Amino acid sequence: MALLERHDTGAIAHLKLNAPQSLNALSDAMLEALQTEFDRLATDSTIRAVILSGEGKVFCAGHDLKEMTAGRQAEDGGKAYFKDLFDRCARMMMSIQKLPQPVIAQVHGIATAAGCQMVASCDMAVAAEGTKFGVNGVNIGLFCSTPMVALSRNIPRKQAFEMLSTGAFIAAEKAETLGLINRVVPHDQLAAATQDLAETVANKLGAAVKIGKEAFYNQIQMPQDQAYAYTGDVMVENMLYRDTAEGIAAFLEKRPPNWQQ
Amino acid sequence: MALLERHDTGAIAHLKLNAPQSLNALSDAMLEALQTEFDRLATDSTIRAVILSGEGKVFCAGHDLKEMTAGRQAEDGGKAYFKDLFDRCARMMMSIQKLPQPVIAQVHGIATAAGCQMVASCDMAVAAEGTKFGVNGVNIGLFCSTPMVALSRNIPRKQAFEMLSTGAFIAAEKAETLGLINRVVPHDQLAAATQDLAETVANKLGAAVKIGKEAFYNQIQMPQDQAYAYTGDVMVENMLYRDTAEGIAAFLEKRPPNWQQ
Amino acid sequence: MALLERHDTGAIAHLKLNAPQSLNALSDAMLEALQTEFDRLATDSTIRAVILSGEGKVFCAGHDLKEMTAGRQAEDGGKAYFKDLFDRCARMMMSIQKLPQPVIAQVHGIATAAGCQMVASCDMAVAAEGTKFGVNGVNIGLFCSTPMVALSRNIPRKQAFEMLSTGAFIAAEKAETLGLINRVVPHDQLAAATQDLAETVANKLGAAVKIGKEAFYNQIQMPQDQAYAYTGDVMVENMLYRDTAEGIAAFLEKRPPNWQQ
Repeated sequence: MALLERHDTGAIAHLKLNAPQSLNALSDAMLEALQTEFDRLATDSTIRAVILSGEGKVFCAGHDLKEMTAGRQAEDGGKAYFKDLFDRCARMMMSIQKLPQPVIAQVHGIATAAGCQMVASCDMAVAAEGTKFGVNGVNIGLFCSTPMVALSRNIPRKQAFEMLSTGAFIAAEKAETLGLINRVVPHDQLAAATQDLAETVANKLGAAVKIGKEAFYNQIQMPQDQAYAYTGDVMVENMLYRDTAEGIAAFLEKRPPNWQQ
Repeated sequence: MALLERHDTGAIAHLKLNAPQSLNALSDAMLEALQTEFDRLATDSTIRAVILSGEGKVFCAGHDLKEMTAGRQAEDGGKAYFKDLFDRCARMMMSIQKLPQPVIAQVHGIATAAGCQMVASCDMAVAAEGTKFGVNGVNIGLFCSTPMVALSRNIPRKQAFEMLSTGAFIAAEKAETLGLINRVVPHDQLAAATQDLAETVANKLGAAVKIGKEAFYNQIQMPQDQAYAYTGDVMVENMLYRDTAEGIAAFLEKRPPNWQQ
Repeated sequence: MALLERHDTGAIAHLKLNAPQSLNALSDAMLEALQTEFDRLATDSTIRAVILSGEGKVFCAGHDLKEMTAGRQAEDGGKAYFKDLFDRCARMMMSIQKLPQPVIAQVHGIATAAGCQMVASCDMAVAAEGTKFGVNGVNIGLFCSTPMVALSRNIPRKQAFEMLSTGAFIAAEKAETLGLINRVVPHDQLAAATQDLAETVANKLGAAVKIGKEAFYNQIQMPQDQAYAYTGDVMVENMLYRDTAEGIAAFLEKRPPNWQQ
């Protein structure tokens, strides 16, 4: 079986971390499998939404500590390997936001450390009741410094600091309140609820979602006046799409749009 | 009747979008009327709070799609017109934050797309129970890229992304929880609750509110150490106002201040 | 009795503002006492968490208005004194975040103006039921422009703007919901709950908490790609600590870590 399973339903790609024996750890091989799939999706215009889930008892427990420990055998004590590892991991996380398609985390069980970072890095997230979220590297002496980049851009800073410095888990309901996930559903409705959300997004005009998602993450880091200048140009480009003209015309004529997408 | 009605009660200017037949669409004429009024208020020291509301069934449904569609008839397919339109719209939105007076949105019915952006752009907002908020341009193939500049500076990013990519509406209670508005009140108390809030602000020292509001939006975009250097200077300037000296003296002497403002 | 009391329990330093007759005002002397203590803690590797509380009826009511008023007697009307005062105050607030140890505010009664800013500046905060938070300088004509630097980096902007422009207090439960504090507990459990949180943090690997805290406030102000490049290096450094290697090994071997810290 593949380390990362992919099956598509219509315009939705479903990626499933498939290393349940290691709690879907982000090993070198798993990081590569994810990067490869994201690179493929980046140019696949037939896919309009992506779901990311995990096989087994948990969504993802973060980095592969055994592999990292083995890396210490190098002459430099693992320094070069660790640097490369965190670079690859950050690139994978940022690839999620750079994809033209919205990516939805379908979370159950546990999402810790880089696993929690992956949830935070997705555009949206749905979690099953009972799911726990944590950035608990501090418990073993490794502060979750890279996961906090994503986490602290999702939730208020005092709550992020508490999670990072105490290693405590938060429940799914709290994760929703804080902004880390979009909603909590009963476990037996998790797949269906995530699929529903993915289909809703996949049914929109793909070109509009693509230009909008790219603009979302670009503008959020700009001073407001610059963000307006930039998104104004994005809106002009979006207005000039043939399908957008049709979408607006259809709305004004109270009929469904006839999109070529 | 004017497209934008204004009536003042004491130091409070009440602006009402008055194009109910078009759901108070932000047409070229409406944008100009708003800009003109904001430019006037910018130098009117007798006004100390502004309320922005809408006539008819909804607060504001965003841009005027008929007018935008007509703009496509130009030789360039509307490109120059659209660019100018989004520039004017962004300028109007940013004018709200640049006004010396706090601006409060009084929202009912529906606030969508640029209408939702206007709520997000106001300094504060009060909404009636039952009000719905959305940035649903994606439904017609036009991602709400300019509205998201304001929206994503009000609410957590995953919730903003969901609204933008699904086009789904959120209820007033959710809008309050997320930070898009300050409070929800029964519909028959909307005008009174907004007026109360406006009067509370209008009764403060106008010069202090003015310098503080300007500093609020300036500092929020700065690195923290720079923000402190800047606001330190603002505090010094504020301390040297004659009325502030009187306000502090009155507080220490346990009497009401005798302000010249 | 000292203006700022300090007593340590194990690796936890407990600082108590001790000027109850002035509601623990941040007078020149109090600012200096705090700065001196923070400067001392900055190089004290035996202390791994700090608690900041207030003696008497309230946590802290902000600047010392009598002292500020006296400052007006200078030839320049107090301008130089005020500038220096706000510089010293901002330096003290930023020192909290620059400390290697997490700092927890233990709040009761009232935290207003610069007192509320101190809560916002701490890494975490626990409050007793019934505590009120406000940035109410506007009531006396002095907009809380420096407190808002910390406040607006803790809570959503519309709620911050309302507090600043109306001078209204918010309850502890609301402060928790907005993100200003981490939790609310009954008054008779305040000291114990804060101590528990401090002990939890103090029991972690100090070096990991130190490098992580520093990275937290640095990365939060960076563009995301830069934040990842920076925190990747932080993770590498953290991985190379001897105690971190031991922490990870202990975890893999399912035994408690034997840290040298």
